[in-house]
Amino acid sequence: MTDLTGKNVAIVSGGMDSVTMLYHMYDIVGDAIHVLSFNYGQKHKKELDYVAFHTDKLELPWNVIDLTSVTNLLTRSALVGKSEVPEGHYAAENMKQTVVPNRNMMMASIAAAALINNGGYILGLGIHAGDHAIYPDCRVAFAEILEVTLKIANEGFIHPQFTVFAPWLTVPKQEIARVGTERYGIDYSKTWSCYKGGELHCGKCGTCVERKEAFVLADVEDPTKYEEN
Amino acid sequence: MTDLTGKNVAIVSGGMDSVTMLYHMYDIVGDAIHVLSFNYGQKHKKELDYVAFHTDKLELPWNVIDLTSVTNLLTRSALVGKSEVPEGHYAAENMKQTVVPNRNMMMASIAAAALINNGGYILGLGIHAGDHAIYPDCRVAFAEILEVTLKIANEGFIHPQFTVFAPWLTVPKQEIARVGTERYGIDYSKTWSCYKGGELHCGKCGTCVERKEAFVLADVEDPTKYEEN
Repeated sequence: MTDLTGKNVAIVSGGMDSVTMLYHMYDIVGDAIHVLSFNYGQKHKKELDYVAFHTDKLELPWNVIDLTSVTNLLTRSALVGKSEVPEGHYAAENMKQTVVPNRNMMMASIAAAALINNGGYILGLGIHAGDHAIYPDCRVAFAEILEVTLKIANEGFIHPQFTVFAPWLTVPKQEIARVGTERYGIDYSKTWSCYKGGELHCGKCGTCVERKEAFVLADVEDPTKYEEN
Repeated sequence: MTDLTGKNVAIVSGGMDSVTMLYHMYDIVGDAIHVLSFNYGQKHKKELDYVAFHTDKLELPWNVIDLTSVTNLLTRSALVGKSEVPEGHYAAENMKQTVVPNRNMMMASIAAAALINNGGYILGLGIHAGDHAIYPDCRVAFAEILEVTLKIANEGFIHPQFTVFAPWLTVPKQEIARVGTERYGIDYSKTWSCYKGGELHCGKCGTCVERKEAFVLADVEDPTKYEEN
């Protein structure tokens, strides 16, 4: 493994939000970034291939943390269990099935451990509240208390300027699509949103619906190939 | 895997504190407990064998979560890295080498995910502040904010009565040894403290020194065989 000294840590899933956050963070701190992704048994592992594309492009070190031994404990989520991934808009009640219990806190806690070990001070997260409130760990309140908790849990060991960098928290998804396309020239065909993990984006699950809307509202071209088209 | 519905979760390392916490939790909630242990590449894996002894005795389901893919990111700690485990009392500066960055928050975050998935509401931790302040994630302040953070991160999904159960936080270690011996009849020869993970407890590292002191101060027999004797 690359020597990590002084490196900050970005959690990148391969979706639009975290990939765009990575380019934004790179714009600010340059290549002092170590990228982490997580395999928690999700059906949509295709997204990890796209992380490789962007870390190659930016020449950043990258590790996939294997959390598959946790998978059996998370059977209630449709993203890892046997249930069908629900279709429709995020607002629908059944999208709650896509919540993986405590997912962002698990990933942030592990990434923070690496960050503290590295001596870096920025923990980059792609979370955004969007227009759907079903993910409680994508809210401002969570990001704020997460930062304080990590400081308390690691007092004396964590960098004094430790910061949770979550630039999209209060930004609508169309802004992410617009900034990423116009400012950073991100090829969004190399990002993955669909929860189903087929060959193409299904175009019907909550995250596909949201993705399509974002490009329309941003008035930028959507490079995604959807199954339904 | 056993059906976990309704089960609470206890994190048990196989050390005195978490094993005694498990018996105390069992005394309160009976067998509605799923036990989790973690393999994060620690040198003292022997402690996991002792967890098996106690979960067998109490007939509780038990899983070891494999976090070894995180190990490479935690190279600065003497517990997982190549450094020698330091000897002497916990108060000594070099004992800081035994701190694993963000360890308790990582483990608690994963255990909380399982707990929420199960529908249980008690997360049992063996952490205690003791007389040494070098572990910032063994303090009351950490346990308190951890509970609040988990509630915020999982609002709408976590049990309304969710509680971090950490009965030893402000209890001296000799009280743990006394309660465990006199009230629960725990066989402490089936617990492991030593950071070095040899055949016997070394008797010299910080946690061995603390263990020996606890039995002396509690005025109960220490069943541990130490290398130095």
